[in-house]
Amino acid sequence: MQNNNKKSALTEKDGIPQPESFSKSALEKIVESRKAQPSSEDLVKGILAKNITALSRAITLVESTNPEHLSKANEIINACLPHANQSIRIGITGVPGVGKSTFIEAFGTTLTSLGKKVAVLTIDPSSTISHGSILGDKTRMEELVKDTNAYIRPSASGETLGGVARKTRETIILCEAAGFDTIIIETVGVGQSETAVHSMVDFFLLLKISGAGDELQGIKRGIMEMADAIVINKADGDNIAKAKLAKTEFNRALHLFPAKKSGWTPTVATCSSITKEGIIGVWQTISSYFELVQANNYFQEKRKEQNQYWMMETINEQLKNSFYNHPEIIKLLEENKKAVANDELSPFAAAMNLLNAYFKS
Amino acid sequence: MQNNNKKSALTEKDGIPQPESFSKSALEKIVESRKAQPSSEDLVKGILAKNITALSRAITLVESTNPEHLSKANEIINACLPHANQSIRIGITGVPGVGKSTFIEAFGTTLTSLGKKVAVLTIDPSSTISHGSILGDKTRMEELVKDTNAYIRPSASGETLGGVARKTRETIILCEAAGFDTIIIETVGVGQSETAVHSMVDFFLLLKISGAGDELQGIKRGIMEMADAIVINKADGDNIAKAKLAKTEFNRALHLFPAKKSGWTPTVATCSSITKEGIIGVWQTISSYFELVQANNYFQEKRKEQNQYWMMETINEQLKNSFYNHPEIIKLLEENKKAVANDELSPFAAAMNLLNAYFKS
Repeated sequence: MQNNNKKSALTEKDGIPQPESFSKSALEKIVESRKAQPSSEDLVKGILAKNITALSRAITLVESTNPEHLSKANEIINACLPHANQSIRIGITGVPGVGKSTFIEAFGTTLTSLGKKVAVLTIDPSSTISHGSILGDKTRMEELVKDTNAYIRPSASGETLGGVARKTRETIILCEAAGFDTIIIETVGVGQSETAVHSMVDFFLLLKISGAGDELQGIKRGIMEMADAIVINKADGDNIAKAKLAKTEFNRALHLFPAKKSGWTPTVATCSSITKEGIIGVWQTISSYFELVQANNYFQEKRKEQNQYWMMETINEQLKNSFYNHPEIIKLLEENKKAVANDELSPFAAAMNLLNAYFKS
Repeated sequence: MQNNNKKSALTEKDGIPQPESFSKSALEKIVESRKAQPSSEDLVKGILAKNITALSRAITLVESTNPEHLSKANEIINACLPHANQSIRIGITGVPGVGKSTFIEAFGTTLTSLGKKVAVLTIDPSSTISHGSILGDKTRMEELVKDTNAYIRPSASGETLGGVARKTRETIILCEAAGFDTIIIETVGVGQSETAVHSMVDFFLLLKISGAGDELQGIKRGIMEMADAIVINKADGDNIAKAKLAKTEFNRALHLFPAKKSGWTPTVATCSSITKEGIIGVWQTISSYFELVQANNYFQEKRKEQNQYWMMETINEQLKNSFYNHPEIIKLLEENKKAVANDELSPFAAAMNLLNAYFKS
């Protein structure tokens, strides 16, 4: 991932600039600065002073698996917490090929031109396997990468979805404390990561394109049901008519779903990330949503619920981690799984075998 | 629940007949037979000999919270396991008012007339709160209740959904070992119990009626996406035309969902539980499904997956039980929840507080 991110300090781990060709002394400087570990207090001060290097370093601590780093990360997050929450959080999803990167480039630069400070985070569990990244192709986000009012940070790799999601959740707090008022969380629309993203954003945007066949193929696990807006991208050139048709179809499909607790009626719009036609309209829609939910208190209630959800999720994840990483369980799990698959043991009896082994030691 | 079930031995806990008016000696017999606790071996022998009393007693052990009963239940289940799995498992859901009981009465008696042995189980977490039961009104299942080739057992009450689901899962095994070849699991279509049922059946049937307004209102959490068949009930009298219209609408809606892993294309049909028109057609559809999935091996694979899913679910549930029932956690949970809701503590830090307290003691 890092190999593609050499263009700007803002996309780098630890916020350390990595010029195209390293001079020896630059490399030495980096090694030196990596050694000098700033204290939690210093990092918090830096973050509150909107220092991007401090922010990036703190995020690296959040992403670390080193227990010492984690406890430091916790200190920082709790110190940042009173300064967080002053933002809007937007989730953006869509299957590969709908043009998420180009949309975020167009949408993000529109927002910064309106005086917003935009942080773009990603949840991409697939990158943990392929080590690829949906933000890999930085050429599509050339402008936003150079924009000093934007900060782009791909998700940590080498993690479970639960782990990635937790880290993104904490990263939001740090970005908000650093003065970013618009948090965009991008995810690839193919799996369960949507649910995780949905549980940490205020507004959920589903990106689509007009397709050749049935417009609605690929609706998965209620992703459409989660959407507050569907935006049909690539509505330019020959595509405009098809995009309008798709808009009608999606509008009809949205009516199949029950009304939302927020009181908001999901919208469908078309846009072009190239001509920028419709991009400002997307922002206006999102603004109307926030006006509504801040007035009817849904915004505040949802955030409270999300906080408690994340507390429970963290507990459940850690309980499972502790269980499945226990040496005794590692030893016994496979044979019990096999016995269950072969109907030699009931699922419940196998579970009890394992639980007894776990709680005994 | 028991008060409504006086018509037949087959619907009673412990399989003990409860005539309308008790004679003193009958009551004494019951007390006596309750005292004489048969051994696990005796119960297994009884179940395999298709003895309903033994089956009902074993299910009562499964439902017990007494650890001694549970360990006995486990012995019985594991002894029954080699004799289980020779059945088809059908989940039936639908919101209150669609006529689930009358449908199951008509469908179940049709199956027994074809020589099937039918067990009807229910998952109704709402009964844990209201102490009501969707099977409460036995007058709607008059015939099936009296049918010696049918066995009806409402779900245990006073439990979490996870608990109810686990117990139903185990009860299926016992019913199959007792020779029931068609297991119907009924649930009320208003919540998460559908997901639990879906994870323990081979075929999922969604019961609907033609409504006044939009036919598709009330689609919830992917229930329609789970359905292998949608059956529009009450297609009789003045309702026939409306039911046919609803059929067209549902057919169209089903096309919005991606293809199923089973290779099966979900069907829509109409039926009347009163005239029995269409009931045999439902059975023919289900038969075609089983022909397909047994031939393409999806049936066997899905059951293996379901077994492993239930092992994991049981583990997760027990880990959470152990955590949330820990005296230290009970003491600390509320204050941490409050701190999280008020943004005084990050969800992660609160979770860590609680986890540290738990693992320390």
